Amino acid sequence: MFREQDVTAAHSSDTPAFVAVDWGTSSFRAWLMASDGVQLAETRGSEGMLHCATAGFGPVLHDHLEKLGAAADLPVLICGMAGARQGWVEAPYLHTPTRLDALHAGAIRVDTDGDVRILPGLAQARADRPDVMRGEETQLLGVTEPEFSGLVCIPGTHSKWIRIEAGAVIEFATYMTGELFAVLSQHSILMHAVMPDGEDAADGVAFHAGLATAQAAPTALSSTLFRLRAAQLLGFEQRADGAARLSGLLIGTEIADARARFGADYPLRLIGAGRLGHLYRDALIASGFTVNECDAEQASRGGLVKAARQIWGARFS
Amino acid sequence: MFREQDVTAAHSSDTPAFVAVDWGTSSFRAWLMASDGVQLAETRGSEGMLHCATAGFGPVLHDHLEKLGAAADLPVLICGMAGARQGWVEAPYLHTPTRLDALHAGAIRVDTDGDVRILPGLAQARADRPDVMRGEETQLLGVTEPEFSGLVCIPGTHSKWIRIEAGAVIEFATYMTGELFAVLSQHSILMHAVMPDGEDAADGVAFHAGLATAQAAPTALSSTLFRLRAAQLLGFEQRADGAARLSGLLIGTEIADARARFGADYPLRLIGAGRLGHLYRDALIASGFTVNECDAEQASRGGLVKAARQIWGARFS
Repeated sequence: MFREQDVTAAHSSDTPAFVAVDWGTSSFRAWLMASDGVQLAETRGSEGMLHCATAGFGPVLHDHLEKLGAAADLPVLICGMAGARQGWVEAPYLHTPTRLDALHAGAIRVDTDGDVRILPGLAQARADRPDVMRGEETQLLGVTEPEFSGLVCIPGTHSKWIRIEAGAVIEFATYMTGELFAVLSQHSILMHAVMPDGEDAADGVAFHAGLATAQAAPTALSSTLFRLRAAQLLGFEQRADGAARLSGLLIGTEIADARARFGADYPLRLIGAGRLGHLYRDALIASGFTVNECDAEQASRGGLVKAARQIWGARFS
Repeated sequence: MFREQDVTAAHSSDTPAFVAVDWGTSSFRAWLMASDGVQLAETRGSEGMLHCATAGFGPVLHDHLEKLGAAADLPVLICGMAGARQGWVEAPYLHTPTRLDALHAGAIRVDTDGDVRILPGLAQARADRPDVMRGEETQLLGVTEPEFSGLVCIPGTHSKWIRIEAGAVIEFATYMTGELFAVLSQHSILMHAVMPDGEDAADGVAFHAGLATAQAAPTALSSTLFRLRAAQLLGFEQRADGAARLSGLLIGTEIADARARFGADYPLRLIGAGRLGHLYRDALIASGFTVNECDAEQASRGGLVKAARQIWGARFS
């Protein structure tokens, strides 16, 4: 099995093998990849699914392939929202439980010039716990060994927690943590409790106080949210600490529920990026998890490379 | 102690005794009241605190007093956000624990023509559970006997739960339930999971399913919210049921936490209005509470009459 860390001079090559694309709701990222998994060139844009649903997907991809200098016959492998029903071509969900190294088998070929394929998302098609992901399954493939067992946490607008056993996704849960932070700080009374520019000093004390409040009362979120406002009205807390405390409340409530549901005994891989990744790492450690942190973009690229090797093996020999 | 239900022909009079005003964030309601608590005339407007903070409070009150045909020397008693720091004149919070029949002692006289006073709100000035109310304290006074002990629930944008012992407010908690419903259905991904006009058929089955989900997993709100969307993507649920289910999740989570915090052994008074009041009544009964329902406007008027009798006793003799 190919792994990004396996790259050595002996296998290395400057010949492009395929183009890896992470096509999200509001972002586009593509990398020209060599057969040994080395990234040769990169391009980024804001032409996500929402933009392309009206403007078209084909022309956006074509422009970015030109920027990468990719040959016309170079295969392209895409993960993310481009495969949603409202995306370019729907790549139907694989249903849990499913092995991550079976993702490539669900790839859909797009009816366009060249060999362009979109990886499927995953669905937990259970009436009691329905859930979906698109894009994160490729990151999971990227950061796990073929027989990995454990938990993975992927923070974000819609945070994902995934339980994997022997390389298969058994169960997962999505938390609207990032989106709750955004809508509450922009559209609710809590807009008066966080700084108007949306960027507070990352006060570790206020963040950890929020975490502690959430852990002590994980059923009380809609009440502890209001207290954020009341505490400032009554002079107990400062607006400058509001965003950090709000983060702590929301992330702490997510972790408390996930811990109760999945347990903290598994090894946990955190697929993080930037400041949010650091906040989760601190919060997870404070909640008793042993955390192994991976970079989110590297995880996407790694998953696309693994799947590409399974689809176009000959190009990687 | 005066009670609205004590009205009899023997005490009845058509002579106006005072004007009762409930001045909220976005609404104004005033009633011309007789000394026996009978309502002689009513006026309503949308000139709430937010409007008057720029347009001025005095002229709005003056216009409404004219509509009521109130004599210039008739005293006026106001409750609600007009007494907030950003209101007309700040009526500083009384701090819990406090007897409800002491509210009148915290009334602030406004420096304007005539005798115009604003009742104070209540603050729970505890660093671990800071909380505030303005307007609800007057409703509490209106619906409780002098030595009442029990719980009161006041649903709304910011739902309140209040524990009262022998006529004194001991503790209370605010839940952002109504505001969460509004911001999630208007500004989050859940806008795709509720009908665009915001008014769904009130499906009792979907509402109770949401309640049951919340009761089974009261720590999982940010996850069960996302499932609302996933369940529709996967064909388990219908968008027409989305708003009822969202109501059930939010109200159910509120009640589960309040029940754990305050217990269900007290008699519970529900100060409700319209459809929201009915939803809460159903949900509270389903959660094992014995519910005694009161009308919200009548509660406000009743509280203002009780406080007015304490302030201007001579006018009520």
